[in-house]
Amino acid sequence: MDKAQQDALKKAAGIEAAKLIQDGMIAGLGTGSTVRFLVDELGRRVQEEGLKFTGVTTSRRTQEQAEGYGIKIVNIDDVDHIDITIDGADEVDKNFNGIKGGGAALLWEKIVAINSNKVVWIVDQSKVVDTIGKFPLPVEVIPFGNGQVIRKFEAKGYKPTLRLDAAGKPVLTDENDYVVDLHLERIDHPQELAEDLIHTVGVVEHGLFLNMVDQVIVGDPAGPRTLINPNK
Amino acid sequence: MDKAQQDALKKAAGIEAAKLIQDGMIAGLGTGSTVRFLVDELGRRVQEEGLKFTGVTTSRRTQEQAEGYGIKIVNIDDVDHIDITIDGADEVDKNFNGIKGGGAALLWEKIVAINSNKVVWIVDQSKVVDTIGKFPLPVEVIPFGNGQVIRKFEAKGYKPTLRLDAAGKPVLTDENDYVVDLHLERIDHPQELAEDLIHTVGVVEHGLFLNMVDQVIVGDPAGPRTLINPNK
Repeated sequence: MDKAQQDALKKAAGIEAAKLIQDGMIAGLGTGSTVRFLVDELGRRVQEEGLKFTGVTTSRRTQEQAEGYGIKIVNIDDVDHIDITIDGADEVDKNFNGIKGGGAALLWEKIVAINSNKVVWIVDQSKVVDTIGKFPLPVEVIPFGNGQVIRKFEAKGYKPTLRLDAAGKPVLTDENDYVVDLHLERIDHPQELAEDLIHTVGVVEHGLFLNMVDQVIVGDPAGPRTLINPNK
Repeated sequence: MDKAQQDALKKAAGIEAAKLIQDGMIAGLGTGSTVRFLVDELGRRVQEEGLKFTGVTTSRRTQEQAEGYGIKIVNIDDVDHIDITIDGADEVDKNFNGIKGGGAALLWEKIVAINSNKVVWIVDQSKVVDTIGKFPLPVEVIPFGNGQVIRKFEAKGYKPTLRLDAAGKPVLTDENDYVVDLHLERIDHPQELAEDLIHTVGVVEHGLFLNMVDQVIVGDPAGPRTLINPNK
Protein backbone atom coordinates (compact mmCIF):
# COMPACT_ATOMS: atom_id res chain seq x y z
CA MET A 1 0.00 0.00 0.00
CA ASP A 2 1.40 3.39 -0.91
CA LYS A 3 1.28 6.49 1.25
CA ALA A 4 -1.70 8.00 -0.61
CA GLN A 5 -3.75 4.86 0.03
CA GLN A 6 -2.67 4.76 3.67
CA ASP A 7 -3.56 8.44 4.09
CA ALA A 8 -7.01 7.72 2.64
CA LEU A 9 -7.56 5.06 5.32
CA LYS A 10 -6.32 7.39 8.05
CA LYS A 11 -8.62 10.13 6.78
CA ALA A 12 -11.64 7.80 6.72
CA ALA A 13 -10.96 6.75 10.31
CA GLY A 14 -10.54 10.38 11.36
CA ILE A 15 -13.84 11.42 9.73
CA GLU A 16 -15.64 8.47 11.31
CA ALA A 17 -14.28 9.35 14.76
CA ALA A 18 -15.23 13.01 14.41
CA LYS A 19 -18.89 11.88 14.54
CA LEU A 20 -18.36 10.98 18.20
CA ILE A 21 -17.88 14.62 19.17
CA GLN A 22 -21.13 16.36 20.11
CA ASP A 23 -22.11 19.85 21.12
CA GLY A 24 -20.97 20.78 24.62
CA MET A 25 -18.42 18.01 24.99
CA ILE A 26 -14.94 18.36 26.43
CA ALA A 27 -12.77 16.34 24.05
CA GLY A 28 -9.14 15.30 24.28
CA LEU A 29 -7.36 15.59 20.94
CA GLY A 30 -4.34 13.41 20.31
CA THR A 31 -1.30 13.86 18.14
CA GLY A 32 -0.08 12.44 14.86
CA SER A 33 -0.84 12.05 11.18
CA THR A 34 -4.22 10.34 11.67
CA VAL A 35 -5.32 12.88 14.27
CA ARG A 36 -4.55 15.66 11.78
CA PHE A 37 -7.40 14.33 9.62
CA LEU A 38 -9.67 14.19 12.67
CA VAL A 39 -8.93 17.80 13.56
CA ASP A 40 -9.44 18.88 9.93
CA GLU A 41 -12.90 17.27 10.00
CA LEU A 42 -13.74 18.78 13.41
CA GLY A 43 -12.64 22.16 12.07
CA ARG A 44 -14.97 21.70 9.11
CA ARG A 45 -17.88 20.83 11.40
CA VAL A 46 -17.14 23.83 13.63
CA GLN A 47 -17.07 26.18 10.66
CA GLU A 48 -19.82 24.65 8.48
CA GLU A 49 -22.16 23.07 11.02
CA GLY A 50 -21.61 25.32 14.04
CA LEU A 51 -20.37 22.46 16.24
CA LYS A 52 -19.40 23.79 19.65
CA PHE A 53 -17.04 21.82 21.86
CA THR A 54 -13.98 22.40 24.02
CA GLY A 55 -10.70 20.70 23.29
CA VAL A 56 -7.81 19.57 25.49
CA THR A 57 -4.73 18.91 23.40
CA THR A 58 -1.84 16.49 23.88
CA SER A 59 0.81 18.51 22.08
CA ARG A 60 1.59 22.03 20.97
CA ARG A 61 1.25 20.90 17.34
CA THR A 62 -2.34 19.78 17.74
CA GLN A 63 -3.16 22.88 19.74
CA GLU A 64 -1.95 25.11 16.92
CA GLN A 65 -3.87 23.15 14.29
CA ALA A 66 -7.11 23.19 16.32
CA GLU A 67 -6.90 26.85 17.24
CA GLY A 68 -6.36 27.62 13.57
CA TYR A 69 -9.91 26.32 13.02
CA GLY A 70 -11.27 28.41 15.89
CA ILE A 71 -11.70 25.40 18.16
CA LYS A 72 -11.60 26.47 21.81
CA ILE A 73 -8.65 24.79 23.55
CA VAL A 74 -8.23 24.82 27.34
CA ASN A 75 -5.59 23.52 29.70
CA ILE A 76 -6.21 20.10 31.18
CA ASP A 77 -6.17 21.64 34.66
CA ASP A 78 -9.02 23.97 33.74
CA VAL A 79 -11.54 21.13 33.27
CA ASP A 80 -12.91 18.73 35.87
CA HIS A 81 -13.40 15.91 33.37
CA ILE A 82 -12.82 14.96 29.72
CA ASP A 83 -15.78 13.26 28.01
CA ILE A 84 -13.82 11.54 25.28
CA THR A 85 -10.30 11.51 23.91
CA ILE A 86 -9.51 10.55 20.32
CA ASP A 87 -5.92 9.76 19.52
CA GLY A 88 -3.79 7.71 17.17
CA ALA A 89 -1.60 4.73 18.01
CA ASP A 90 1.51 3.18 16.51
CA GLU A 91 0.40 -0.40 17.17
CA VAL A 92 -2.53 -2.11 18.83
CA ASP A 93 -3.09 -5.82 19.46
CA LYS A 94 -6.23 -7.90 19.96
CA ASN A 95 -6.05 -7.42 23.74
CA PHE A 96 -6.24 -3.65 23.22
CA ASN A 97 -2.67 -3.16 24.32
CA GLY A 98 -0.92 -0.53 22.29
CA ILE A 99 2.27 1.37 21.66
CA LYS A 100 2.24 5.14 21.37
CA GLY A 101 4.90 7.79 21.25
CA GLY A 102 6.15 7.68 17.68
CA GLY A 103 5.40 11.40 17.64
CA ALA A 104 7.18 11.94 20.97
CA ALA A 105 3.96 13.11 22.66
CA LEU A 106 3.29 10.01 24.76
CA LEU A 107 3.50 11.72 28.15
CA TRP A 108 0.81 14.34 27.55
CA GLU A 109 -1.19 11.73 25.60
CA LYS A 110 -1.15 9.37 28.57
CA ILE A 111 -2.03 12.13 31.03
CA VAL A 112 -5.02 13.15 28.90
CA ALA A 113 -6.07 9.52 28.35
CA ILE A 114 -6.17 8.54 32.02
CA ASN A 115 -8.29 11.59 32.77
CA SER A 116 -10.85 10.76 30.05
CA ASN A 117 -14.16 8.96 30.50
CA LYS A 118 -13.73 7.29 27.12
CA VAL A 119 -10.67 6.75 24.92
CA VAL A 120 -10.90 6.08 21.18
CA TRP A 121 -7.97 5.35 18.89
CA ILE A 122 -7.99 5.90 15.15
CA VAL A 123 -5.55 3.88 13.07
CA ASP A 124 -5.11 2.55 9.59
CA GLN A 125 -5.24 -1.23 9.29
CA SER A 126 -1.44 -1.60 9.23
CA LYS A 127 -1.34 -0.67 12.94
CA VAL A 128 -3.44 -3.64 14.05
CA VAL A 129 -1.00 -6.45 14.93
CA ASP A 130 -0.94 -9.84 16.60
CA THR A 131 1.91 -8.92 18.94
CA ILE A 132 3.13 -5.41 19.69
CA GLY A 133 6.82 -4.56 19.62
CA LYS A 134 7.75 -4.44 15.96
CA PHE A 135 7.28 -0.69 16.33
CA PRO A 136 10.11 0.59 18.55
CA LEU A 137 8.76 1.32 22.03
CA PRO A 138 9.32 4.97 22.99
CA VAL A 139 10.41 5.71 26.56
CA GLU A 140 10.58 9.29 27.82
CA VAL A 141 13.65 9.83 30.00
CA ILE A 142 15.19 12.65 32.00
CA PRO A 143 18.18 14.17 30.14
CA PHE A 144 20.27 14.05 33.36
CA GLY A 145 21.79 10.58 33.50
CA ASN A 146 20.13 9.36 30.31
CA GLY A 147 23.33 7.55 29.38
CA GLN A 148 23.11 5.48 32.57
CA VAL A 149 19.51 4.53 31.77
CA ILE A 150 20.50 3.54 28.24
CA ARG A 151 23.31 1.33 29.59
CA LYS A 152 20.83 -0.41 31.91
CA PHE A 153 18.48 -1.01 28.99
CA GLU A 154 21.36 -2.38 26.90
CA ALA A 155 22.30 -4.78 29.71
CA LYS A 156 18.71 -6.03 29.74
CA GLY A 157 18.73 -6.63 25.98
CA TYR A 158 16.19 -3.88 25.24
CA LYS A 159 18.25 -2.58 22.27
CA PRO A 160 17.80 1.11 23.11
CA THR A 161 18.58 4.03 20.82
CA LEU A 162 18.42 7.68 21.77
CA ARG A 163 16.09 9.43 19.32
CA LEU A 164 17.95 12.14 17.38
CA ASP A 165 16.72 14.88 15.09
CA ALA A 166 17.99 15.60 11.59
CA ALA A 167 20.87 17.62 13.03
CA GLY A 168 21.95 14.68 15.20
CA LYS A 169 20.78 16.26 18.46
CA PRO A 170 18.46 14.51 20.91
CA VAL A 171 14.78 15.04 20.14
CA LEU A 172 13.12 17.00 22.95
CA THR A 173 9.56 16.29 24.07
CA ASP A 174 7.12 19.05 25.02
CA GLU A 175 8.46 18.57 28.57
CA ASN A 176 12.08 18.87 27.39
CA ASP A 177 12.83 15.21 28.03
CA TYR A 178 14.64 12.77 25.74
CA VAL A 179 13.09 9.78 23.95
CA VAL A 180 14.77 6.37 24.00
CA ASP A 181 13.35 3.83 21.53
CA LEU A 182 13.50 0.16 22.47
CA HIS A 183 13.87 -2.14 19.46
CA LEU A 184 12.28 -5.23 20.97
CA GLU A 185 10.68 -6.67 17.79
CA ARG A 186 8.01 -8.37 19.92
CA ILE A 187 6.70 -7.76 23.42
CA ASP A 188 5.21 -10.95 24.80
CA HIS A 189 4.75 -9.70 28.36
CA PRO A 190 3.80 -6.03 28.12
CA GLN A 191 2.64 -5.73 31.74
CA GLU A 192 5.97 -7.00 33.10
CA LEU A 193 7.89 -4.71 30.78
CA ALA A 194 5.78 -1.74 31.86
CA GLU A 195 6.53 -2.51 35.52
CA ASP A 196 10.24 -2.72 34.83
CA LEU A 197 10.27 0.56 32.92
CA ILE A 198 8.21 2.52 35.44
CA HIS A 199 10.55 1.39 38.23
CA THR A 200 13.62 2.60 36.36
CA VAL A 201 14.79 5.85 37.95
CA GLY A 202 15.13 8.43 35.18
CA VAL A 203 12.17 7.11 33.21
CA VAL A 204 9.34 9.64 33.15
CA GLU A 205 6.85 7.52 31.23
CA HIS A 206 6.73 4.84 28.53
CA GLY A 207 4.71 4.25 25.40
CA LEU A 208 2.89 1.11 26.54
CA PHE A 209 -0.82 1.92 26.81
CA LEU A 210 -2.23 -1.28 28.25
CA ASN A 211 -5.99 -1.80 28.20
CA MET A 212 -6.50 1.97 28.24
CA VAL A 213 -8.56 2.27 25.05
CA ASP A 214 -12.33 1.70 24.88
CA GLN A 215 -12.66 1.40 21.12
CA VAL A 216 -10.47 1.43 18.05
CA ILE A 217 -11.65 2.76 14.70
CA VAL A 218 -9.68 1.03 11.96
CA GLY A 219 -9.29 2.56 8.53
CA ASP A 220 -9.82 -0.37 6.15
CA PRO A 221 -10.19 -0.50 2.36
CA ALA A 222 -13.72 -1.83 2.92
CA GLY A 223 -14.53 1.19 5.10
CA PRO A 224 -13.86 2.11 8.73
CA ARG A 225 -14.63 -0.66 11.24
CA THR A 226 -14.85 -0.32 15.00
CA LEU A 227 -13.31 -2.70 17.55
CA ILE A 228 -14.90 -2.54 21.01
CA ASN A 229 -12.77 -3.41 24.06
CA PRO A 230 -14.84 -5.89 26.09
CA ASN A 231 -12.69 -5.40 29.18
CA LYS A 232 -13.35 -1.71 29.69
CA MET B 1 18.20 23.38 69.97
CA ASP B 2 18.81 26.64 68.15
CA LYS B 3 20.01 26.98 64.58
CA ALA B 4 23.63 27.64 65.54
CA GLN B 5 23.74 24.41 67.56
CA GLN B 6 22.05 22.46 64.74
CA ASP B 7 24.50 23.91 62.22
CA ALA B 8 27.38 22.78 64.44
CA LEU B 9 26.03 19.21 64.33
CA LYS B 10 25.58 19.36 60.57
CA LYS B 11 29.11 20.68 60.17
CA ALA B 12 30.57 17.92 62.33
CA ALA B 13 28.75 15.27 60.27
CA GLY B 14 29.96 16.90 57.05
CA ILE B 15 33.58 16.99 58.20
CA GLU B 16 33.39 13.37 59.36
CA ALA B 17 31.96 12.26 55.98
CA ALA B 18 34.61 14.17 54.03
CA LYS B 19 37.16 11.67 55.42
CA LEU B 20 35.54 9.01 53.24
CA ILE B 21 36.70 10.72 50.06
CA GLN B 22 40.11 9.55 48.89
CA ASP B 23 42.44 10.44 46.04
CA GLY B 24 41.22 9.24 42.66
CA MET B 25 37.64 8.62 43.69
CA ILE B 26 34.55 9.55 41.72
CA ALA B 27 32.22 10.98 44.34
CA GLY B 28 28.58 11.97 44.15
CA LEU B 29 27.87 15.20 46.02
CA GLY B 30 24.35 15.78 47.29
CA THR B 31 22.42 18.94 47.97
CA GLY B 32 21.35 20.85 51.04
CA SER B 33 22.52 22.66 54.13
CA THR B 34 24.49 19.71 55.57
CA VAL B 35 26.13 18.96 52.23
CA ARG B 36 27.32 22.57 52.08
CA PHE B 37 29.53 21.85 55.09
CA LEU B 38 30.78 18.67 53.41
CA VAL B 39 31.74 20.55 50.26
CA ASP B 40 33.40 23.30 52.31
CA GLU B 41 35.57 20.65 54.00
CA LEU B 42 36.34 18.91 50.70
CA GLY B 43 37.29 22.28 49.25
CA ARG B 44 39.63 22.84 52.18
CA ARG B 45 41.23 19.43 51.67
CA VAL B 46 41.63 20.06 47.93
CA GLN B 47 43.28 23.40 48.54
CA GLU B 48 45.32 22.63 51.67
CA GLU B 49 46.05 18.91 51.34
CA GLY B 50 46.08 18.50 47.55
CA LEU B 51 43.20 16.01 47.57
CA LYS B 52 42.33 14.99 44.01
CA PHE B 53 38.94 13.53 43.21
CA THR B 54 36.19 13.95 40.64
CA GLY B 55 32.71 15.00 41.63
CA VAL B 56 29.26 14.32 40.19
CA THR B 57 26.74 16.80 41.54
CA THR B 58 23.02 16.46 42.17
CA SER B 59 22.09 20.10 41.64
CA ARG B 60 23.34 23.25 40.00
CA ARG B 61 23.81 24.81 43.44
CA THR B 62 26.24 22.13 44.60
CA GLN B 63 28.05 22.23 41.29
CA GLU B 64 28.65 25.97 41.64
CA GLN B 65 29.88 25.63 45.21
CA ALA B 66 32.23 22.75 44.37
CA GLU B 67 33.65 24.37 41.25
CA GLY B 68 34.29 27.49 43.33
CA TYR B 69 36.80 25.39 45.29
CA GLY B 70 38.40 24.09 42.11
CA ILE B 71 36.84 20.62 42.50
CA LYS B 72 36.57 18.91 39.12
CA ILE B 73 32.88 18.21 38.33
CA VAL B 74 31.80 15.95 35.48
CA ASN B 75 28.43 14.92 34.08
CA ILE B 76 27.01 11.65 35.38
CA ASP B 77 27.05 10.29 31.83
CA ASP B 78 30.78 10.86 31.55
CA VAL B 79 31.65 8.29 34.24
CA ASP B 80 31.14 4.55 34.20
CA HIS B 81 30.69 4.32 37.96
CA ILE B 82 30.46 6.42 41.12
CA ASP B 83 32.49 5.15 44.08
CA ILE B 84 30.54 6.88 46.80
CA THR B 85 27.79 9.46 47.11
CA ILE B 86 27.38 11.63 50.18
CA ASP B 87 24.08 13.42 50.57
CA GLY B 88 21.76 14.79 53.21
CA ALA B 89 18.28 13.57 54.11
CA ASP B 90 15.18 15.15 55.58
CA GLU B 91 14.27 12.11 57.67
CA VAL B 92 15.60 8.59 58.16
CA ASP B 93 14.15 5.76 60.24
CA LYS B 94 15.72 2.71 61.89
CA ASN B 95 15.05 0.61 58.76
CA PHE B 96 17.14 3.05 56.74
CA ASN B 97 14.12 4.34 54.87
CA GLY B 98 14.30 8.04 54.28
CA ILE B 99 12.63 11.10 52.87
CA LYS B 100 14.54 13.45 50.62
CA GLY B 101 13.60 16.38 48.46
CA GLY B 102 13.18 19.26 50.88
CA GLY B 103 15.62 21.08 48.62
CA ALA B 104 13.69 20.09 45.46
CA ALA B 105 16.67 18.10 44.12
CA LEU B 106 15.32 14.58 44.75
CA LEU B 107 15.30 13.48 41.12
CA TRP B 108 18.97 14.08 40.37
CA GLU B 109 19.81 12.87 43.90
CA LYS B 110 18.04 9.58 43.27
CA ILE B 111 19.62 9.14 39.85
CA VAL B 112 23.09 9.68 41.34
CA ALA B 113 22.34 7.43 44.33
CA ILE B 114 21.21 4.41 42.31
CA ASN B 115 24.35 4.67 40.20
CA SER B 116 26.67 4.72 43.24
CA ASN B 117 28.54 1.80 44.75
CA LYS B 118 28.04 3.24 48.22
CA VAL B 119 25.61 5.84 49.57
CA VAL B 120 26.22 7.80 52.78
CA TRP B 121 23.82 10.27 54.33
CA ILE B 122 24.84 13.03 56.70
CA VAL B 123 22.21 14.40 59.05
CA ASP B 124 21.90 16.12 62.38
CA GLN B 125 20.22 14.07 65.11
CA SER B 126 16.83 15.72 64.60
CA LYS B 127 16.46 13.87 61.28
CA VAL B 128 16.59 10.40 62.83
CA VAL B 129 12.99 9.38 63.53
CA ASP B 130 10.95 6.35 64.53
CA THR B 131 8.51 6.70 61.64
CA ILE B 132 9.02 8.85 58.56
CA GLY B 133 6.29 11.18 57.31
CA LYS B 134 6.28 14.10 59.72
CA PHE B 135 8.43 15.80 57.10
CA PRO B 136 6.19 16.47 54.06
CA LEU B 137 7.00 13.96 51.33
CA PRO B 138 8.10 15.74 48.12
CA VAL B 139 6.82 14.36 44.82
CA GLU B 140 8.16 15.70 41.53
CA VAL B 141 5.37 16.06 38.97
CA ILE B 142 5.01 17.16 35.35
CA PRO B 143 3.57 20.68 35.13
CA PHE B 144 1.08 19.53 32.44
CA GLY B 145 -1.92 18.16 34.30
CA ASN B 146 -0.44 18.72 37.76
CA GLY B 147 -3.85 19.83 38.98
CA GLN B 148 -5.32 16.43 38.05
CA VAL B 149 -2.55 14.67 39.98
CA ILE B 150 -3.17 16.88 43.01
CA ARG B 151 -6.89 16.06 42.90
CA LYS B 152 -6.10 12.34 42.84
CA PHE B 153 -3.79 12.76 45.84
CA GLU B 154 -6.50 14.71 47.67
CA ALA B 155 -9.02 11.94 47.01
CA LYS B 156 -6.57 9.45 48.54
CA GLY B 157 -6.12 11.57 51.66
CA TYR B 158 -2.49 12.43 50.91
CA LYS B 159 -3.02 16.11 51.81
CA PRO B 160 -1.01 17.52 48.87
CA THR B 161 0.18 21.09 48.50
CA LEU B 162 1.90 22.51 45.44
CA ARG B 163 5.21 24.00 46.55
CA LEU B 164 5.34 27.75 45.83
CA ASP B 165 8.16 30.24 45.96
CA ALA B 166 8.11 33.56 47.81
CA ALA B 167 6.36 35.19 44.85
CA GLY B 168 3.58 32.59 44.95
CA LYS B 169 4.72 30.81 41.80
CA PRO B 170 5.34 27.06 41.60
CA VAL B 171 8.90 26.09 42.56
CA LEU B 172 10.69 24.59 39.55
CA THR B 173 13.17 21.73 39.90
CA ASP B 174 16.38 21.53 37.88
CA GLU B 175 14.29 19.57 35.34
CA ASN B 176 11.59 22.27 35.30
CA ASP B 177 9.05 20.09 37.07
CA TYR B 178 6.79 21.04 39.98
CA VAL B 179 7.02 19.72 43.54
CA VAL B 180 3.93 18.53 45.40
CA ASP B 181 4.41 17.97 49.14
CA LEU B 182 2.32 15.30 50.84
CA HIS B 183 1.49 16.10 54.46
CA LEU B 184 1.04 12.57 55.70
CA GLU B 185 2.33 13.01 59.27
CA ARG B 186 3.36 9.34 59.37
CA ILE B 187 4.10 6.77 56.66
CA ASP B 188 3.53 3.30 58.04
CA HIS B 189 3.83 1.47 54.72
CA PRO B 190 6.46 3.30 52.67
CA GLN B 191 6.87 0.55 50.07
CA GLU B 192 3.15 0.53 49.25
CA LEU B 193 3.09 4.31 49.06
CA ALA B 194 6.11 4.31 46.74
CA GLU B 195 4.35 1.84 44.43
CA ASP B 196 1.23 3.97 44.33
CA LEU B 197 3.18 7.13 43.57
CA ILE B 198 5.36 5.64 40.87
CA HIS B 199 2.28 4.28 39.09
CA THR B 200 0.62 7.69 39.05
CA VAL B 201 0.87 9.11 35.53
CA GLY B 202 2.38 12.59 35.81
CA VAL B 203 4.66 11.67 38.72
CA VAL B 204 8.31 11.80 37.66
CA GLU B 205 9.81 10.62 40.95
CA HIS B 206 9.13 10.77 44.68
CA GLY B 207 11.20 11.48 47.76
CA LEU B 208 11.00 8.04 49.35
CA PHE B 209 14.51 6.55 49.37
CA LEU B 210 13.85 3.05 50.70
CA ASN B 211 16.82 0.97 51.82
CA MET B 212 19.08 2.89 49.44
CA VAL B 213 21.61 4.16 51.98
CA ASP B 214 24.60 2.13 53.24
CA GLN B 215 25.46 4.25 56.23
CA VAL B 216 24.23 7.34 58.02
CA ILE B 217 26.55 9.73 59.83
CA VAL B 218 24.58 11.48 62.55
CA GLY B 219 25.68 14.79 63.98
CA ASP B 220 25.17 14.39 67.72
CA PRO B 221 26.17 16.64 70.63
CA ALA B 222 28.44 13.79 71.83
CA GLY B 223 30.16 13.73 68.41
CA PRO B 224 29.30 12.21 65.04
CA ARG B 225 28.11 8.60 65.18
CA THR B 226 27.71 6.22 62.26
CA LEU B 227 24.75 3.90 61.66
CA ILE B 228 25.49 0.97 59.34
CA ASN B 229 22.64 -0.51 57.27
CA PRO B 230 22.81 -4.29 57.82
CA ASN B 231 20.61 -5.00 54.80
CA LYS B 232 22.86 -3.50 52.15
